[in-house]
Amino acid sequence: MVNKGLLIVLSGFSGAGKGTVVKRMMELHNEYALSISATTRSPREGEVDGREYFFKSVDEFKQMIAKNELIEYAQYVSNYYGTPKAYVEKQLEEGRNVILEIEIQGALKIKEMFPDTVLMFIIPPTAKELENRLRGRGTEDDAAIKARLKRAVEESLGVESYDYIITNDEVDLCVERIHDIVTAEKCKASNNIEIINNIREELNIFSEGE
Amino acid sequence: MVNKGLLIVLSGFSGAGKGTVVKRMMELHNEYALSISATTRSPREGEVDGREYFFKSVDEFKQMIAKNELIEYAQYVSNYYGTPKAYVEKQLEEGRNVILEIEIQGALKIKEMFPDTVLMFIIPPTAKELENRLRGRGTEDDAAIKARLKRAVEESLGVESYDYIITNDEVDLCVERIHDIVTAEKCKASNNIEIINNIREELNIFSEGE
Repeated sequence: MVNKGLLIVLSGFSGAGKGTVVKRMMELHNEYALSISATTRSPREGEVDGREYFFKSVDEFKQMIAKNELIEYAQYVSNYYGTPKAYVEKQLEEGRNVILEIEIQGALKIKEMFPDTVLMFIIPPTAKELENRLRGRGTEDDAAIKARLKRAVEESLGVESYDYIITNDEVDLCVERIHDIVTAEKCKASNNIEIINNIREELNIFSEGE
Repeated sequence: MVNKGLLIVLSGFSGAGKGTVVKRMMELHNEYALSISATTRSPREGEVDGREYFFKSVDEFKQMIAKNELIEYAQYVSNYYGTPKAYVEKQLEEGRNVILEIEIQGALKIKEMFPDTVLMFIIPPTAKELENRLRGRGTEDDAAIKARLKRAVEESLGVESYDYIITNDEVDLCVERIHDIVTAEKCKASNNIEIINNIREELNIFSEGE
């Protein structure tokens, strides 16, 4: 089993519980690191610069693009979102699995550039459950929630290109599924050809030795 | 996550510990079933008909072939080996993951017929460890062990077509890796398209409802 870090993209419907899952993953498994995105959108209440996002002005963001400091970036509902490169590369080199929590359009760009990236899409157990979670937040009125549910369908366009679809019925179960998938990915034959070649070589030597 | 049973082929070098791993899997996880092969080779000491193998005469075996009662069969070191069909189908229908412990040539035939089959190849952590395990059995002389190591190299031809390569450094760890891979396979997007389509449909209804 290879031990290098894996690049993981985590997407999913708003309200599917991505944020909670990622937070729990960090608590349970210290071989994971969360990539923090840069964005031009305004901080929501309770969000801290450098924790949820790096909050940037449009000018600052455009400078990051110009300096090639982003792995990918995309515009989404009139705001820019992007993934700073340096942090991701450092974590992977140190053997940590890096989670990017991004939308499908960014995810597909990353997969194109880094084919080893594992794309995971988090879904609620049912659509009803998604509606309940959004209403449970209590921050939006009925029309806003319906708009959000409508957008959820649009957000899922392209999910067929993802590698895995993971149901978030219970946070800890969902975290373990993600962790299992990472184990499976590291066992993939394509990631272990060198190991098997080494064993073959040694076997040849042993079987001929005296 | 889909709940139907998965067809798993487990191959590996002789001495890699497949038998022990499979036995432990059955002890730890009751959603697995082991397919018992039919063979024309003679029972080794301690082997019981219907437990390790169904021991058949060449005539009986040829009759099974004629009646189409085998998923696959192959000749290996002058003996026939094959997988009786009825048992495998029954277990899969009941939602159990069925493990076939067979050689590469049979494995590749099965994958061709059933593309959803997951091919796993068990390797020892090192070639030296494989040699030690074979010597540890104490049943064979030096020449026989060298012949076996030589054959191990041949046995691994085609392993590049496998889906996963799993190191058996410790039996329980190896069992959990196999179980993790099964979880991952069941989360594959291609196995969950129906689930996501259902959610989309429901979301559309909710977002339009009053």
